[in-house]
Amino acid sequence: MTRPGDLNHLFVVFGATGDLMRRKLLAALFRLGRRDGGARGVVLGVGRSPWTDDRFRVWAREALLALGHPDEGVSQWCEGCLFYHALGERAEDDEELRERMESLERAHGLPGNRVLYLAIPPDAVPATVERIGRSGLHRSHGWTRLVLEKPFGTDLASARALNQLIHASFEESQVFRIDHYLGKETMQNLLTFRFANPVFESVWNRDRVDHVQITVAEAVGVEGRGHSYDRVGALRDMVQNHLTQILSLIAMEPPARFEADAIRNEKVKVLHSVAPVARDAAVFGQYTRGQVEGRDVTGYGEEVEAPSRTETFVALRLELANWRWRGVPFYLRTGKRLKRQISQVVVQFRPAPLCPLGPDCPASPNALVITLQPDEGFDLLVEVKTPGQAIAFQTQRFRFRYAEVFGPLPDAYETLLYDVLTGDQTLFVRSDEIEAAWRLYEAILTHPPEVHPYVAGSWGPEQADALLAREGRSWWNP
Amino acid sequence: MTRPGDLNHLFVVFGATGDLMRRKLLAALFRLGRRDGGARGVVLGVGRSPWTDDRFRVWAREALLALGHPDEGVSQWCEGCLFYHALGERAEDDEELRERMESLERAHGLPGNRVLYLAIPPDAVPATVERIGRSGLHRSHGWTRLVLEKPFGTDLASARALNQLIHASFEESQVFRIDHYLGKETMQNLLTFRFANPVFESVWNRDRVDHVQITVAEAVGVEGRGHSYDRVGALRDMVQNHLTQILSLIAMEPPARFEADAIRNEKVKVLHSVAPVARDAAVFGQYTRGQVEGRDVTGYGEEVEAPSRTETFVALRLELANWRWRGVPFYLRTGKRLKRQISQVVVQFRPAPLCPLGPDCPASPNALVITLQPDEGFDLLVEVKTPGQAIAFQTQRFRFRYAEVFGPLPDAYETLLYDVLTGDQTLFVRSDEIEAAWRLYEAILTHPPEVHPYVAGSWGPEQADALLAREGRSWWNP
Repeated sequence: MTRPGDLNHLFVVFGATGDLMRRKLLAALFRLGRRDGGARGVVLGVGRSPWTDDRFRVWAREALLALGHPDEGVSQWCEGCLFYHALGERAEDDEELRERMESLERAHGLPGNRVLYLAIPPDAVPATVERIGRSGLHRSHGWTRLVLEKPFGTDLASARALNQLIHASFEESQVFRIDHYLGKETMQNLLTFRFANPVFESVWNRDRVDHVQITVAEAVGVEGRGHSYDRVGALRDMVQNHLTQILSLIAMEPPARFEADAIRNEKVKVLHSVAPVARDAAVFGQYTRGQVEGRDVTGYGEEVEAPSRTETFVALRLELANWRWRGVPFYLRTGKRLKRQISQVVVQFRPAPLCPLGPDCPASPNALVITLQPDEGFDLLVEVKTPGQAIAFQTQRFRFRYAEVFGPLPDAYETLLYDVLTGDQTLFVRSDEIEAAWRLYEAILTHPPEVHPYVAGSWGPEQADALLAREGRSWWNP
Repeated sequence: MTRPGDLNHLFVVFGATGDLMRRKLLAALFRLGRRDGGARGVVLGVGRSPWTDDRFRVWAREALLALGHPDEGVSQWCEGCLFYHALGERAEDDEELRERMESLERAHGLPGNRVLYLAIPPDAVPATVERIGRSGLHRSHGWTRLVLEKPFGTDLASARALNQLIHASFEESQVFRIDHYLGKETMQNLLTFRFANPVFESVWNRDRVDHVQITVAEAVGVEGRGHSYDRVGALRDMVQNHLTQILSLIAMEPPARFEADAIRNEKVKVLHSVAPVARDAAVFGQYTRGQVEGRDVTGYGEEVEAPSRTETFVALRLELANWRWRGVPFYLRTGKRLKRQISQVVVQFRPAPLCPLGPDCPASPNALVITLQPDEGFDLLVEVKTPGQAIAFQTQRFRFRYAEVFGPLPDAYETLLYDVLTGDQTLFVRSDEIEAAWRLYEAILTHPPEVHPYVAGSWGPEQADALLAREGRSWWNP
């Protein structure tokens, strides 16, 4: 058992005046700090801006109030728990930061437990990790944990380099790579669904499953962020991390134990079973002018400065060479400016070997639709008889939605930060997972396929449909 | 294809002034007669009462109006399609009936197709079948079909005798034994569910299923029919027919073809796999004074004239010795004056071999609950994570209800009578099924177990709970 006192900590946010802090972290830290019986945490914001504690507190208070938190609690928390340190570029500045941290720890009677949270642009991560190591910010009398946001590199080589840099100062057990897209509840819901429900585990294999589809669709475009997005593209932005994470959770074997490393072992094992994606198993697309949710929207080409070959859509066919999945294709798809925002997994089962209506049977195969966002839940698609004299089938849904039973699920960040404090790495991405994921996409990153236009508000280019159609399959478009 | 003209027929109801005719058959015949493009049918009521056509029509009209049918259509149908014939006991009377039938057929240009429907008390069935055969009512230029209501005998010997008597005059293909309890839609829904949904067929076996429960519970008592019920009891009244039918549909193999005899072959094969029920695998009960649905009700002993050992409750443990089900117990249970009226099947799956929470895991095993009556539908019971920091499970339902999608299902009688006209025997019980079902219960019919009292409004005697508890299981009480 962890005693509450073991969780008392100094929470250092690098990039404390940025967007992530304002929109997500502050609220999560605020709620964590006010939990009954929770840890005592002092937050030290670090940034380049020459702000004072007071200026930082005013800014933070406004941000929290804008998110709808109650004034009284917010003011009290900002006053008592929020501090700011302006960090310069010189080596002496690092020394100053270390002294500030130690002085805060002394003043608040903290045991030296430290979270170092990098809420900074990807470019700045390597240098900051190096500075932390050089100045010994990670050495204290308590535990120290480093938290990073995606992207974790931009390809296999850069990911390896970054991991090496991190491991120069941190054990892997100290590193928490957040891929918050799924959120803690959703990931745990998936794990629970897979391993607490043997009725599905029984059919979760090549004998029963025809194929699996993973769709992460966005209705938004790049929305003014065209410049930075244009250097990234959908493969790096979504596929290598989010979609590959979902793939691992759906395809993994039951872990030996339900512990972080046992689970991550199985996730990385899945990735090692996947054949690197060949160029003809990938379709890239870029949206053109169209209509999304009844609104005219511009094409990607009009949102970036120069003509661009960056993909805003990716569809892939993956093959897993293991005992469970050999011969079952996994189709992955993501894109911006698609018809609607949805993240879902469809496990389509094989058709019945004999149909009650004979060879020209209209019965659809069963499918399990796992919706991750929005309106998280499950639909099992089942054939039922249409009432009446003639025998006719209809596909109906055995339905479950979390929100209908439990109300809104808790915020992803708050629960993930709590895991950082307790040292539970289950839902964080391990260095070998990152590298195994990049390895899958090396070939198409180096030699990307042609980028096909698709109309905004559609489900992507027709070539993505052809990817499945040539095997007699089609996308489930929700 | 059947041409509509092939279905034109004379529908002869023996026992035409009785309760079944008034409550069920008349309305079904009326609706069948008014179907667009349906068969032309002339109904001849036969009974002992010295009624005229007119008296019969007035009685029928009142009955139909009382059931809420529109006056105009009812009067027209009664006037044009309803006839009555008073049948005496002499051989000449049979001759008269034959002449009446032939004259009606001539007058209405019918091709000699005849339905002979026995809506008479069980005691009267053998003699009537014999009279029909002796007087040649079953011989005509068209088809003739005999329809019988349950009970089909009172034990194996009497069922065999009755079948022999029937087969003296009718081919089995002419005999339609109605077990309308399930209704056509419900039986077809079960068959569709089983054989159009391979995701469930995959787990429908001894590898995945722990046990099966079939409950047909009634809230009503004998309600003034104590005298006739007392000679029958729950085993003959419910178990041998309804519960055994449900068992067959749940346990049967996929048929070679979806045709009446292929399906009935599989149903009877199930029964041949069941070991006859031993006395210690059966619990009998009789209700005592209690409360049902908030109302005080008397005990069975107060509703019959003499002290009685008739069972109003039966619980059984059945074993199937076949490849699919060996080692999976089927528990059957039925009773009057139970807590609520419900017919449902629970397929409880085996627990997960390893629980995400370790050895003392609170996860419940998966189960599929098939509700037949009322509110027909399916619930798949699945473990989901309770939102929040700690890992905790809750059983939730993936839910489907026919009525929510399709509205009320059609009446059982109308659709079953249409099957009689088209000669589709799928949903009718074949002679060998009847006999195989009786065979299962011979031992406990001959040497019935002790009858235990249970309080009206409960789920039966505690001995029924013990039947499962001794194997570490328990009833799903809805």
